[in-house]
Amino acid sequence: MNNNGEIIRLLKEKEDFISGAEMANTLKITRAAVWKRINILREKGYTIEASPAKGYKLLKSPDLSIEEIRDSISGRSMIIGREIIFFDTINSTNTCAMELAEKGYPDGTIIIADAQTGGKGRLGRKWLSPQGKNLYMSIILRPAILPRDAAILTLMTAVACASAIKRISSIPASIKWPNDLMVSDRKLGGILTEIKADMDRIFHAVIGIGININLGASDMPDEIKACATSIKNETGNVLSRTKVAVEILREMDKWYSILLNSGKKPIIEEWLKLSCTIGRAVKVTVGNNVFTGIAGTIDEEGMLMLKLPDNTFKKISAGDVIILR
Amino acid sequence: MNNNGEIIRLLKEKEDFISGAEMANTLKITRAAVWKRINILREKGYTIEASPAKGYKLLKSPDLSIEEIRDSISGRSMIIGREIIFFDTINSTNTCAMELAEKGYPDGTIIIADAQTGGKGRLGRKWLSPQGKNLYMSIILRPAILPRDAAILTLMTAVACASAIKRISSIPASIKWPNDLMVSDRKLGGILTEIKADMDRIFHAVIGIGININLGASDMPDEIKACATSIKNETGNVLSRTKVAVEILREMDKWYSILLNSGKKPIIEEWLKLSCTIGRAVKVTVGNNVFTGIAGTIDEEGMLMLKLPDNTFKKISAGDVIILR
Repeated sequence: MNNNGEIIRLLKEKEDFISGAEMANTLKITRAAVWKRINILREKGYTIEASPAKGYKLLKSPDLSIEEIRDSISGRSMIIGREIIFFDTINSTNTCAMELAEKGYPDGTIIIADAQTGGKGRLGRKWLSPQGKNLYMSIILRPAILPRDAAILTLMTAVACASAIKRISSIPASIKWPNDLMVSDRKLGGILTEIKADMDRIFHAVIGIGININLGASDMPDEIKACATSIKNETGNVLSRTKVAVEILREMDKWYSILLNSGKKPIIEEWLKLSCTIGRAVKVTVGNNVFTGIAGTIDEEGMLMLKLPDNTFKKISAGDVIILR
Repeated sequence: MNNNGEIIRLLKEKEDFISGAEMANTLKITRAAVWKRINILREKGYTIEASPAKGYKLLKSPDLSIEEIRDSISGRSMIIGREIIFFDTINSTNTCAMELAEKGYPDGTIIIADAQTGGKGRLGRKWLSPQGKNLYMSIILRPAILPRDAAILTLMTAVACASAIKRISSIPASIKWPNDLMVSDRKLGGILTEIKADMDRIFHAVIGIGININLGASDMPDEIKACATSIKNETGNVLSRTKVAVEILREMDKWYSILLNSGKKPIIEEWLKLSCTIGRAVKVTVGNNVFTGIAGTIDEEGMLMLKLPDNTFKKISAGDVIILR
């Protein structure tokens, strides 16, 4: 099934030359098949030294490898990532995922792209999506929840992403309601949830995840420099996009299964712990209306309870939040 | 643009022979063009007598005529019905409308079919859709409302349909929450709302309307005979489907413009007046859960406030309601 990913794993485990015979034996394929797969991996960006006497040695891996992502999550009987589809360049992973969902692709299907030409954020805004720098990933979900509970999918994904980033980097990632991943008041990533539904059921949802990983300050247009950042920008180090993707998929799988088995409450509790919004003075823009107040908790449907200056609360289901200093 | 509809109007207004020359003159087309259009109308089911000396006389119209629907609503600068697409037979007008909406068809586009092979109701249930009997119609809407307010579109359509049916028949049509049109505790019609949305916006909604018009008891399978009815079944008279469609489109246009200009409140007020649910003892099934109580009002998001035996209220966003006697 996924011999390419297994060959990479064998090469990585050995950290030195490994003979073609040993790999053929372990994977139960012929030596000719090993050689064929080594060449496929070279085309995919792996630098592999070959020596007639010693075998093969992995010198360098691409920083985004679908083979490694597949291999890392296979055999764990996860829902998330049971099917992974990769594009070098795509218009928008979310648009593609909505189309594939319409065609019947299953719960947990992942679409990843190395670059997006029409990357999108909330309200039709552009999402900066240059090649080779960041993670652009969409997940097809088919949860048995009511359409009016769809916002929990955004909260769940924010929890999964913030937890994943905290675990594999030193970054204190937090969540700004409703859909931003933040560090030191700058945007590190965003989540875009789209659904097709009737009033009883969600037919399918697509959760888009964009995380700035190795984006440098020089890659950012001036207008977003002040408000955006990346993992590399914060830590000074390049991080493997494969590693970030795998960690997010594992966290997504964990939280999705919590949602399906235990409902919304555990997600909201974790979200509140990871939030940088709650308790802060904020300005919220909803269409043409602007509200200023203190961001209270979120309710069980993910709505922000904004405490207005007259001490009444306003429930807000969607809007742009600016944290006031 | 719509000379076919105009020719029908001239024939109907005259109620006798009208000369080809007079029609050609009124419509500013040639007599040959009049003759051509008369033949098109004959193919569409109109019986038109032609006399070399006296001209043309309309003897019989089909009971569902897109030409007449178009002509009846043209020039009123309505949103609803600005584009009308007709199919003799289709799988489902809602499925078709969702596809056309995806392709960019505008706010107010109507899809009507004479028969559906895969007519659908809530929760994947079948909707009885034989040829030539009923109204099967879907409307594409693109309202600037929040996704969590989508249920108002179902309520609005129920108000429009119940009002239209009451005006053109003697039937005291009422509304059973959330989506049924009723008369004497039997189902006369249903509404199925589907949306594509993100958390900020509805990209498009499709409202499916199915009304049993000339369906006879013999057309109904046994399992629905006890709970379904039709306009003909109630009044004993065949009613023109064209007339029902035109009246519903006019009411939809009126209430849609009220929604866009004045918000949800007027719709909910009218809905409450037309409801047969409020104040009744009901059993509500939501997935695997069953609640029994008194149906209270609906809130501003269209949720049913069910008063439980312990006098607390439960908010219900979707479910099957059975009115207890």
